[in-house]
Amino acid sequence: MKYSIVLSTQPAQFQAATFKGGLEPNLQRIAALGYAGVELAIRDPRLVDAGEIERLVRLHGLAVPAIGTGQAWGEEGLSFTDPDPEVRRAAIERTISHIPFAARTGAVIIIGLLRGVVKPGVDGSQAMDWLVAALQQCCAAARPHGVRLALEPICRYETTLINNLAQGLELLRQVGAANMGLLADTFHMNIEEPVIEDSIRACGDRIFHFHVADSNRWYPGAGHLDFERILNTLLSTGYRGTVSGEFMPLPDADTAAQRGIAFLRSLPSAAR
Amino acid sequence: MKYSIVLSTQPAQFQAATFKGGLEPNLQRIAALGYAGVELAIRDPRLVDAGEIERLVRLHGLAVPAIGTGQAWGEEGLSFTDPDPEVRRAAIERTISHIPFAARTGAVIIIGLLRGVVKPGVDGSQAMDWLVAALQQCCAAARPHGVRLALEPICRYETTLINNLAQGLELLRQVGAANMGLLADTFHMNIEEPVIEDSIRACGDRIFHFHVADSNRWYPGAGHLDFERILNTLLSTGYRGTVSGEFMPLPDADTAAQRGIAFLRSLPSAAR
Repeated sequence: MKYSIVLSTQPAQFQAATFKGGLEPNLQRIAALGYAGVELAIRDPRLVDAGEIERLVRLHGLAVPAIGTGQAWGEEGLSFTDPDPEVRRAAIERTISHIPFAARTGAVIIIGLLRGVVKPGVDGSQAMDWLVAALQQCCAAARPHGVRLALEPICRYETTLINNLAQGLELLRQVGAANMGLLADTFHMNIEEPVIEDSIRACGDRIFHFHVADSNRWYPGAGHLDFERILNTLLSTGYRGTVSGEFMPLPDADTAAQRGIAFLRSLPSAAR
Repeated sequence: MKYSIVLSTQPAQFQAATFKGGLEPNLQRIAALGYAGVELAIRDPRLVDAGEIERLVRLHGLAVPAIGTGQAWGEEGLSFTDPDPEVRRAAIERTISHIPFAARTGAVIIIGLLRGVVKPGVDGSQAMDWLVAALQQCCAAARPHGVRLALEPICRYETTLINNLAQGLELLRQVGAANMGLLADTFHMNIEEPVIEDSIRACGDRIFHFHVADSNRWYPGAGHLDFERILNTLLSTGYRGTVSGEFMPLPDADTAAQRGIAFLRSLPSAAR
């Protein structure tokens, strides 16, 4: 099993981004802890030097399994389901602008909070139509570059659109693109999935990326999730991607990152 | 084990109140399903006919193990931690106004969302001081009537004050009243407690009331919580109170109420 951890390329508000700021020292620490990669949260590719990031990541022997896009929602309000067509267009353009860096690094582009929420006055099925159309457009733009997208089901408290994997699978069916899959997150699944392992199995090969945080959103091992059972189920679907830590920086980012990977490596599934 | 279920005495917005409106037919249905009691959500005792409610409850052989007070927060904005002293005073008065009915029925008064949240511009420790002072005042008023209060730890998404049982125990220490305890809720514990059973054990005899909903807030049995282990742990603390269903009315209120009690009664712990 390969592990990565979320790293923001610029200061951000989102509590679950483990490290913040100071890219190179963070890459150095993450590599030293034994992580094989970093999941980079990038608000806007125009604001970062992609070439320099790529150089630093490679310098420290790290892969980039995924790019997180949620800061564009959290800090700029972009979303695929805003009633303002200009906002929707900007969200699509922003997503497409991640494709070149994703193509160079082999990263999956994550669609998390960027999908938006059903805003007041918007009909739920209208929001779904906008979401499907936006994803189709992004997938079509990504396909020639061999880039894949992964939509993350997120718990009811953070979005009103796509809370669980079954809803995610139905969305994939509507989008109908081979390069569109799901990102399963253990923290959200603990709240939303009736039986986590059954839901993972039902996704088969449609899981393109995987997030780990424990039941309390601390590092794996700090809560009550059965990671051995969950990760073995994930492996049984044929998943050979990276397992990426997205958890709160508690008691502090370094300690969380160190304890998280130590716990995951202690599991029998780690050898698979 | 005795089971009860949440019943609102008037129409309300809160999604987790299982039945709404139409008191007598609801009492009849709840009794017929085998519940021993109803946890009554009462926004304002002045708006209900306490004598009539008591008569109907007894007519159907039901107990009232607890009174829920959260609608006063949800629909009127009352809270113990609002920066406006008039709002705090009204929340205290409202709580005290539940005492007569609680005394007559033996119900615990639940302090859930009525505690409030840390509002913008308010210091967290100031909010805690207001909360402690308010609870001390309410407990002092309740004590001569033999009435007990139970504060419910509620997950991070719904309040910023007292999310887990450890914080609840520390609050009890500060309040220092023998008639102040905790209400443990399995849905919230699934998100907030590192190990649910350890947290329940740490509370010992300070659990005055207990809520069950499964991990997805559906009826017990619809998610992945291990209720047999949880309820046996609860019994091991000496708890002999009621286990009260507070879950979403899905697929509908009747079905949820029926399946919830059927599942709980199927557990070996039900016989204890």
